[in-house]
Amino acid sequence: MNARNTQFTKAFHALKQNAGSHSPSMEDLKKMFPTLEIKIDACYLSNPYASELVLDYIDRELIQTNAYKKVLTHYPSQQRSLQKVMAESLHVKPENIFIGNGATEIIQMLLQQEEVQKVALMIPTFSSYYEFVGKGCEVVYFPLNERDDYSFDADKYCQFIENEQPDTVVLINPNNPNGAYLSLEKMHILLKRLAFVPRIIIDESFIHFAYEDEALTCLSSTVLFDMYPNVIIVKSLSKDFGIAGVRLGYALMDSRKIDALLEHGFLWNINGIGEYCLRLFVREDFLKRYEEARKQYIKEMCRFKEALLGIENVYVYPSMANFVMLKLPSRIKASFVISALLVEYGIYVRTMADKIGVEGECIRIAGRTREENNCIVMALKSILKDSK
Amino acid sequence: MNARNTQFTKAFHALKQNAGSHSPSMEDLKKMFPTLEIKIDACYLSNPYASELVLDYIDRELIQTNAYKKVLTHYPSQQRSLQKVMAESLHVKPENIFIGNGATEIIQMLLQQEEVQKVALMIPTFSSYYEFVGKGCEVVYFPLNERDDYSFDADKYCQFIENEQPDTVVLINPNNPNGAYLSLEKMHILLKRLAFVPRIIIDESFIHFAYEDEALTCLSSTVLFDMYPNVIIVKSLSKDFGIAGVRLGYALMDSRKIDALLEHGFLWNINGIGEYCLRLFVREDFLKRYEEARKQYIKEMCRFKEALLGIENVYVYPSMANFVMLKLPSRIKASFVISALLVEYGIYVRTMADKIGVEGECIRIAGRTREENNCIVMALKSILKDSK
Repeated sequence: MNARNTQFTKAFHALKQNAGSHSPSMEDLKKMFPTLEIKIDACYLSNPYASELVLDYIDRELIQTNAYKKVLTHYPSQQRSLQKVMAESLHVKPENIFIGNGATEIIQMLLQQEEVQKVALMIPTFSSYYEFVGKGCEVVYFPLNERDDYSFDADKYCQFIENEQPDTVVLINPNNPNGAYLSLEKMHILLKRLAFVPRIIIDESFIHFAYEDEALTCLSSTVLFDMYPNVIIVKSLSKDFGIAGVRLGYALMDSRKIDALLEHGFLWNINGIGEYCLRLFVREDFLKRYEEARKQYIKEMCRFKEALLGIENVYVYPSMANFVMLKLPSRIKASFVISALLVEYGIYVRTMADKIGVEGECIRIAGRTREENNCIVMALKSILKDSK
Repeated sequence: MNARNTQFTKAFHALKQNAGSHSPSMEDLKKMFPTLEIKIDACYLSNPYASELVLDYIDRELIQTNAYKKVLTHYPSQQRSLQKVMAESLHVKPENIFIGNGATEIIQMLLQQEEVQKVALMIPTFSSYYEFVGKGCEVVYFPLNERDDYSFDADKYCQFIENEQPDTVVLINPNNPNGAYLSLEKMHILLKRLAFVPRIIIDESFIHFAYEDEALTCLSSTVLFDMYPNVIIVKSLSKDFGIAGVRLGYALMDSRKIDALLEHGFLWNINGIGEYCLRLFVREDFLKRYEEARKQYIKEMCRFKEALLGIENVYVYPSMANFVMLKLPSRIKASFVISALLVEYGIYVRTMADKIGVEGECIRIAGRTREENNCIVMALKSILKDSK
């Protein structure tokens, strides 16, 4: 480990402290380390092929036509209009759709309802689910076991829920940060047993990357929402469509709840570019091309995971998401590997040091394009070989 | 009034009902009336010269350089970083700045705090201030008098507040929808008398269009925030900079309150274009050009108001904002004038039919560019002449 790397590790640590339980933004990183060149952002859990596709549409339909000027200067449509836009392609009634300024706005809104007094979470999980709970709300944790690859035992989990009697249960599928996936069949069994829970939030932000057949058919959450009255679906659109800067997500939930929310707020919470994207994401011409980008990315993810499995001494947790959590040999610190990747290769990956419930020295790597994934594998191999 | 106009009046009424207490969006209007061409949007309270300036920067710095691609696809910075960006130009500590996804997000957040149990509003006012209050919160109204041009009597108002003892007082300055302005001197007198009120929200969304000297010096709200510990400043950035589609606003408030808010949410509530704009709005090169655009617009507003005063039988309420409220002769329905402007001239103005506290047949017209304002004056003159 050279001097620049050591110095960097310390400074990065300070920046990470400020960013709380998330990665420091590229903007902040560049400000602190102006000479640092981030070539590959493998913190960011998005489909780069989908990003490219959306940008192609934006270029042709907003930029080249100058339509972006109106999009940026005029008020966007209100929720009631946008609900209708999404309803048809989701096969859900407009009044059951709540559109959010990113999934984080939705998570915050859901958790801060006064009827949410006790939330059950599995850990490790996405930090906003425990950070955003309202004042006085209790959070109970069901620890996933490292020995089971952080997958979960439905029987034990249901016993836990029966004992704890939370009013709200959160299931992230595939889970973040490890990517473990619960099949639709198992989900049905679970939801039948959990019919007594008032609210089950299923966060399907990574569901477009999971599959259950060889054709990689996109898994739909509408089925669960239709069948189980206690189910609320939360969906980020940043990951599958690769547009985190736009801030866009939605929830499927009880229309009476949405009516009450819209009566007291969430008036213009979607920006103009967000509205353009929503209208784009339901268009047939776009969806046809998106399906290709989605499948291309899943195939590349499979290849990437295989390649990571080929790295000696590293444990790769099974993942159906667009990222993998890796466990390093205990003699090698995750902070060292993260710094080495960033300083020596310009590759930005996610520390797991702040993740409650993750054991050992772990990092999380998002899958990127084929070329970028190859660079990541090569860099990791080289760093781990040097530190033997 | 021709058949097309009558038919339109009815259909527009239905659309308006759906949009609640706001104007139907251009997108919704176009969907319902595909043949309608909206040439001038005088519902929209923005400075078109500033829009043009911001778009010029966006064109040169985001579009032509392709930087917009990163802005849309990558996560924006978190609140803590953006606070620092704004602090210097506002001469306020970073920890006192809360940046919102439009002022509406901030209003919603402020009003739904559990300590807000009784809110005092003057009416007429911006509807979100009574619509967004939390469950069980009482709202008391101080009616502004039509005979006083909806300006307000500070003595009577203070007596009202002393009697009612609200925990939160809202002052919009200049007021929306009439544009009445309370001078800085009068504001100081008022705030001294209202020192006993726990929270005074001053909404200065239109303050960039008001002036107290011939040089049209921009009025700063920081003074009030610094001097009175119960003052919270709310500021939309959509109006002065003309970027409603971006969704951007901020509040100046107690740092402990902001700490508590950020601990439980508002993580990535500003989108990538919003972040670009925030960083732009504090740059010296931009601010120099913005000052020119602001003054140019104020001067044009003065000319526009003069021209409106020249229309027979129409009463123009005094306004220091970038809009004017007009009262029509009682024999002429506001809905007729609004439809005639839209159908015959493609000019979209705001009905006041839904505004609590506005008496008579009124419309609100936003000032636009010189050419557009001339069209509005001509169209109004013609419509009113025909309906004599």
